[in-house]
Amino acid sequence: MAVALSPAVSLRLKPFSAVRFFSLYRRASKTALYHQIHHFHSYHFTPHPTPPLSTLNSHRGRSFCSVVSAALSSGEATKTESFDKEEVKIGEKVGEFRKRLRIVDIKGGPDEGLNRLDETLVVKGWVRTVRAQSSISFIEINDGSCLSNMQCVLSSDAEGYDQVEKGLVLTGASIWVRGVLVKSQGSKQKVELKVEKIVLVGPSDPSFPIQKKRVSREFLRTKAHLRPRTNTFSAVARVRNSLAYATHKFFQDNGFIWVSSPIITASDCEGAGEQFCVTTLIPGSRETTHTPVAAIPSTKDGLIDWSQDFFGKPAFLTVSGQLNGETYATALSDVYTFGPTFRAENSNTSRHLAEFWMIEPELAFADLEDDMACATAYLQYVVQYVLENCQEDMAFFDTWIEKGIIKRLTDVVEKNFVQLTYTDAINLLLKAKKKFEFPVKWGCDLQSEHERYITEEAFAGCPVIIRDYPKACLFPLDY
Amino acid sequence: MAVALSPAVSLRLKPFSAVRFFSLYRRASKTALYHQIHHFHSYHFTPHPTPPLSTLNSHRGRSFCSVVSAALSSGEATKTESFDKEEVKIGEKVGEFRKRLRIVDIKGGPDEGLNRLDETLVVKGWVRTVRAQSSISFIEINDGSCLSNMQCVLSSDAEGYDQVEKGLVLTGASIWVRGVLVKSQGSKQKVELKVEKIVLVGPSDPSFPIQKKRVSREFLRTKAHLRPRTNTFSAVARVRNSLAYATHKFFQDNGFIWVSSPIITASDCEGAGEQFCVTTLIPGSRETTHTPVAAIPSTKDGLIDWSQDFFGKPAFLTVSGQLNGETYATALSDVYTFGPTFRAENSNTSRHLAEFWMIEPELAFADLEDDMACATAYLQYVVQYVLENCQEDMAFFDTWIEKGIIKRLTDVVEKNFVQLTYTDAINLLLKAKKKFEFPVKWGCDLQSEHERYITEEAFAGCPVIIRDYPKACLFPLDY
Repeated sequence: MAVALSPAVSLRLKPFSAVRFFSLYRRASKTALYHQIHHFHSYHFTPHPTPPLSTLNSHRGRSFCSVVSAALSSGEATKTESFDKEEVKIGEKVGEFRKRLRIVDIKGGPDEGLNRLDETLVVKGWVRTVRAQSSISFIEINDGSCLSNMQCVLSSDAEGYDQVEKGLVLTGASIWVRGVLVKSQGSKQKVELKVEKIVLVGPSDPSFPIQKKRVSREFLRTKAHLRPRTNTFSAVARVRNSLAYATHKFFQDNGFIWVSSPIITASDCEGAGEQFCVTTLIPGSRETTHTPVAAIPSTKDGLIDWSQDFFGKPAFLTVSGQLNGETYATALSDVYTFGPTFRAENSNTSRHLAEFWMIEPELAFADLEDDMACATAYLQYVVQYVLENCQEDMAFFDTWIEKGIIKRLTDVVEKNFVQLTYTDAINLLLKAKKKFEFPVKWGCDLQSEHERYITEEAFAGCPVIIRDYPKACLFPLDY
Repeated sequence: MAVALSPAVSLRLKPFSAVRFFSLYRRASKTALYHQIHHFHSYHFTPHPTPPLSTLNSHRGRSFCSVVSAALSSGEATKTESFDKEEVKIGEKVGEFRKRLRIVDIKGGPDEGLNRLDETLVVKGWVRTVRAQSSISFIEINDGSCLSNMQCVLSSDAEGYDQVEKGLVLTGASIWVRGVLVKSQGSKQKVELKVEKIVLVGPSDPSFPIQKKRVSREFLRTKAHLRPRTNTFSAVARVRNSLAYATHKFFQDNGFIWVSSPIITASDCEGAGEQFCVTTLIPGSRETTHTPVAAIPSTKDGLIDWSQDFFGKPAFLTVSGQLNGETYATALSDVYTFGPTFRAENSNTSRHLAEFWMIEPELAFADLEDDMACATAYLQYVVQYVLENCQEDMAFFDTWIEKGIIKRLTDVVEKNFVQLTYTDAINLLLKAKKKFEFPVKWGCDLQSEHERYITEEAFAGCPVIIRDYPKACLFPLDY
């Protein structure tokens, strides 16, 4: 991690810096601009050893975006301390970072928000639906922190209501609302926000493609920049985030060291799969697709001149960090990799991906029993973590995407994992009172129907590990 | 993350599975082999609904590697419950996974191990040094959990001492020792292990390249598979691991969602840098470097036929996940990416890397003040985390690699971060009573000497953020 930590180097927000913090609204607010000009004219330099810092303004904490700042009346968005013009010093103390108040913080608890009744709250998010009635309007806002929207109720006396009346607040718009949390009259939620003020941060228009009706994933693939605003994709993002974090937590809590194995490599691994070539030999491929083959550096024999490539020889995307993981495991004892991995097989099935994130634990002084115990403990940990931390998202999947998924995952957490040898598995299948499409004999690779029989029928839904496969099943290409 | 969670699919330890758990010692232990044969002959199938699981053997927890199992006397390594031969069922319950007892667990506490005196402990690791004296030998073992070794004291009555006498236990060997923790007579450590039994797991020989004497990093580059066994590289691995985990903790605790932005992409980002091309168009590049240019698919005009490439068009390694991060931030509010990033500039400086892991937070409804506050809070958090969790490693760096690093990092944690505009910074430099090599005027890019003056002299070691750069400094190519 190339984070520039040294205080001798100022932190610059520049495209090349290794850690970059960009906000989505980058325009300097009017307040900030004022300070800037102000400082410029009343410049007053205090030399070391009384650095300017000692009398710095204490800046406000988490502020609002500049669009909102401009819309809010003076002093509402910012609370910069006033200072005497003659005494001003250069430089300001960086403000305190505060966690944003999210809808999940309001509604995600066991009380579903009832514990915050009568509080004045600010919610920022994107409009899901607008229902305008004669004297009252309902706006559902989602901020991506959870599936649930915040229902906002606006009467005509709310500040900024004219924007709703004019039809400017549409599905997809980003808005800022402040209001009092009250008991909801509706049956769908316990609380709602009685809005005092609404600010339209970013407008939308009626052509916004993610409306309330369901759309196909094929359609969403053509709107990839907007699909995170759908229930399905935002739930997937949250669950995936939880799985990744739980993965780190499990291994860190068990004393494993995370190793970032190289992505660009000259190594292969166990013939794991086809590799992508990584090269700078094809000139201009960035700017145009009209690249003459003859422009590729070649030797006088017409061979590619790899010595002119970036690394001076062919390089590839990793298919596995195992080789590197092993060198660290035989020094640090227990390590894991967790990073992107690549396979160039042109196979369009649900079991093959060109790019995926893979976890590869390597245990020193351990045997297959430890290996299975670790795999089992890991799976039970991360599945339990998701069931506990993503309840709403998992309930959504259980209803709309894959019925029964919560029950099946609960089985993974609660049931014992079974391990048996390949030979035992074959015997079990041979004695089964069941007709299989693919005949069973020792040496055959197990098909889905065999695996289903073993897990679902023979072991009643327990996850099963089959070990001691014949070599020929694991490395078919070698035989 | 393509983890196969479904219990309908058995977990198979196969090269193609997405999650793979390999131990470094894969030979089935004699005990396991016995079970396997045993099961085979006494096969007894109990059909659903009384699955075999219900009477499974409860297997032992974290076991030893098979080499050790073989060396240990019967029953010492494994405690499998006995069972009646006639009643045996197929399949065994997977054992409980237990965290390994590491040297850091023994010596890393405030008592440096004195709280565990008289305990019988097992330590597994790699021999750093061996000092054989007339009646007693000292072996230093390191297991990578911390810099400290465990000093093992062996007298001739220790089981397995003959291997020490024969000179088989050498630097680099992996060993298993069991002994009683006693007060150390030496001044370097509070405790040492009085060894009752030693097992040589993996031998070494006198040519092992990492001996006690210091070696250059250039030399270690030629022994990359062994350099994690050195103090420097193992300390770097542990600190890097802590930085990465603290990064996830900081953002997760603040409600950010981790997004894995694509590594292979057709997008560029802000002209951030040269890109590597990712292709499968160069046939046989994996097997041989003798690749004829003419073998690359081309059109009849002699242009590269990108339609035959893996993705049907040119593809590249990402230079930034920002574009993808932004689409998620405008749906989930606060997100971060943390993954590998690539730059193909042929620039061999300490500020450029071809491959590095980059953190890109994206905040919605935030402005530059929030951005700076977040960056500051993040840096202070991760630096403090490392100072607290890697004390021994940081002390090692402070002594051997970069004197004063702990003081400088403590400043980052404890001092206020200062922010000022580029214009203020220029004015500050213009009024400085100091001669700069590079002359200062508004519009110039700041050089290291300028940055050093601002942070070290003007602000007395406070980290400084300079904001509101002229566009021409940030995007020089556009002007």
